[in-house]
Amino acid sequence: MSEGFVGFAALKPYVPGQGEPAIQLHEFESRPLRPSDVEIEVSACGICGTDIHHLTDGWKRATYPLIPGHEFVGRVIKVGGEVKQLKVGDRVGVSPSSSSCGECKECTSGFGQLCAKKIVTYNGVFEGYRTYGGYANKVRVQEPWAIKMPENISDEEGAPLLCAGITTFLPFKHHKIGPNDRVGILGIGGLGHLAIQWARAFSCKSVVVISTSASKEEEAKRLGATDFVVNTPENLKKLTSSLDVLLVCGSGSSTNWNALLNLLDNHGKLVMLDLPEKPMTFAPTALIYKHLSMVGSFVGSNVDLAEMLELASKADVRPMIEKVGNTCEEVNKGIDKLMSGKVRYRVVICGKGRF
Amino acid sequence: MSEGFVGFAALKPYVPGQGEPAIQLHEFESRPLRPSDVEIEVSACGICGTDIHHLTDGWKRATYPLIPGHEFVGRVIKVGGEVKQLKVGDRVGVSPSSSSCGECKECTSGFGQLCAKKIVTYNGVFEGYRTYGGYANKVRVQEPWAIKMPENISDEEGAPLLCAGITTFLPFKHHKIGPNDRVGILGIGGLGHLAIQWARAFSCKSVVVISTSASKEEEAKRLGATDFVVNTPENLKKLTSSLDVLLVCGSGSSTNWNALLNLLDNHGKLVMLDLPEKPMTFAPTALIYKHLSMVGSFVGSNVDLAEMLELASKADVRPMIEKVGNTCEEVNKGIDKLMSGKVRYRVVICGKGRF
Repeated sequence: MSEGFVGFAALKPYVPGQGEPAIQLHEFESRPLRPSDVEIEVSACGICGTDIHHLTDGWKRATYPLIPGHEFVGRVIKVGGEVKQLKVGDRVGVSPSSSSCGECKECTSGFGQLCAKKIVTYNGVFEGYRTYGGYANKVRVQEPWAIKMPENISDEEGAPLLCAGITTFLPFKHHKIGPNDRVGILGIGGLGHLAIQWARAFSCKSVVVISTSASKEEEAKRLGATDFVVNTPENLKKLTSSLDVLLVCGSGSSTNWNALLNLLDNHGKLVMLDLPEKPMTFAPTALIYKHLSMVGSFVGSNVDLAEMLELASKADVRPMIEKVGNTCEEVNKGIDKLMSGKVRYRVVICGKGRF
Repeated sequence: MSEGFVGFAALKPYVPGQGEPAIQLHEFESRPLRPSDVEIEVSACGICGTDIHHLTDGWKRATYPLIPGHEFVGRVIKVGGEVKQLKVGDRVGVSPSSSSCGECKECTSGFGQLCAKKIVTYNGVFEGYRTYGGYANKVRVQEPWAIKMPENISDEEGAPLLCAGITTFLPFKHHKIGPNDRVGILGIGGLGHLAIQWARAFSCKSVVVISTSASKEEEAKRLGATDFVVNTPENLKKLTSSLDVLLVCGSGSSTNWNALLNLLDNHGKLVMLDLPEKPMTFAPTALIYKHLSMVGSFVGSNVDLAEMLELASKADVRPMIEKVGNTCEEVNKGIDKLMSGKVRYRVVICGKGRF
């Protein structure tokens, strides 16, 4: 019954440096192809920070065997009987959500990723079947969640747009961030380097990138930053009340949330985009005296994904990627590289059918 | 040069139970009456939670001698040469802000309380003069910050509306909380008992009051609560994702912020109204996966104050108060009573000219 489904799986939490690699080759049973499903042959899949949290079980909610991958591109190779828009041969992308009810308040208002019945692309369960992601040869998803890829976006560059891209795009759309806004971006990595490009695409008044690496200044400016600030307590103090929005794209256990809130002007918004494993702590006075908001934003719906890809296509928003091949050894190398913090800025598994 | 200004002042941080009272009689020098100022003879002044934080120096930013009082009502007894709207004899109320520039972006967009040059009614400095609040016989404020009191609101009931009232009113106005919203109110005290009445006045779909005191159920329902829940971990769990807005009117060092965020449905808002002395800690996942916001709201502008008083007048929103007389002994009694947590729900110093 395996129908030839094979992927790269972690069988237990990964502990780097202990001699055992993160993932290994693994045959799995896919959910049956339902009438509203399409089957996709994966040709490129990004390695996302989320994959690392799950591979190491940092969030304490991974189930093994675990086949990661929730930003991938491929061709449709089978369609269910009720599939309407897509046909075999179409090039599509899949994001962290790959099924939703289609009928609830969230689904009908463009927030399908918040549907109570939505299924996550991997590490979820769909009608009794575990879901497995794009570190695999083939994946089945619900038709509305397979998004057509614009012609001028390659498989490899398209893949990271489907998670890192949509995550950083969504706040600009929903919080109407635009020409009047002074936008700060904390952290220039897998998320941050795309957030800078969106800020440029949305014509923000200024784009202040805050990074611990002084060496990234030139790159940040090339991507669209108007200002670059090395993240030190003194430098942050100089930015007091200078921003309308701060997109947190890279926080950690030592992040000083009070210092970050202090960067915002009255009515400012701190937008959480990454998912730190540690709780956040700050003085509530910061929110109150300046009428600040702290908001969360989670990937995007299929409606958002289509809009995001259209804008990326037109405004030339592309991830900077490092490619690895589609073999166990190469994927493990990619995982370790991402964990080392040295990737600029997204690792993508490239190729198909080499299992 | 005292011009007969006298009030009740703390000369150092108050430590209850050490034999020394919180405040004592104190003559002070007021700022001169500027052309745009009015002088008010105070006839009622609420004792606010803020006063306690400053009297005990819990927020670590009190300056002594400190004359508290930032919600008070009285008659205008002098006007400066450029005063336009008010005249001697008018009955007015004063809130925590009593001066602003009138020209900046905040002042001209109805957010004067966020003006960078705004002066707080007490514990501030105005052109070299310390500001002293309404625990006094007379106070000088800028004309636009002396708000005319509606006829059907008494001095004593009007006073708490000027801080507790405006604080709880503002989120309904700015966050457009209304008939579609399921509103939770945490804590039924000086703020909470007014928030319940605003939720009723704004026709909210449901008003769920969460309190540690089971004994307050009847009162909460009389004020407008549709549901009353005793604050236990089990009860909070039952309310998972059931609210659109949660107004935090009474938090403390043991508040479980994760449990409170869990009460909110997708797109929900947690509104901070009180100012806990301890930092808040919570898991950022809560904000992200449900697109929640955590927002702060701070008293109100003179525009808001006039609107709030108009609605209070029409919709019969009134504080429940306990009166104390305008003597040193009585005021100290009121302070200690508020600190005991037994006041239902606001203590007001009543009377004038008895110094």
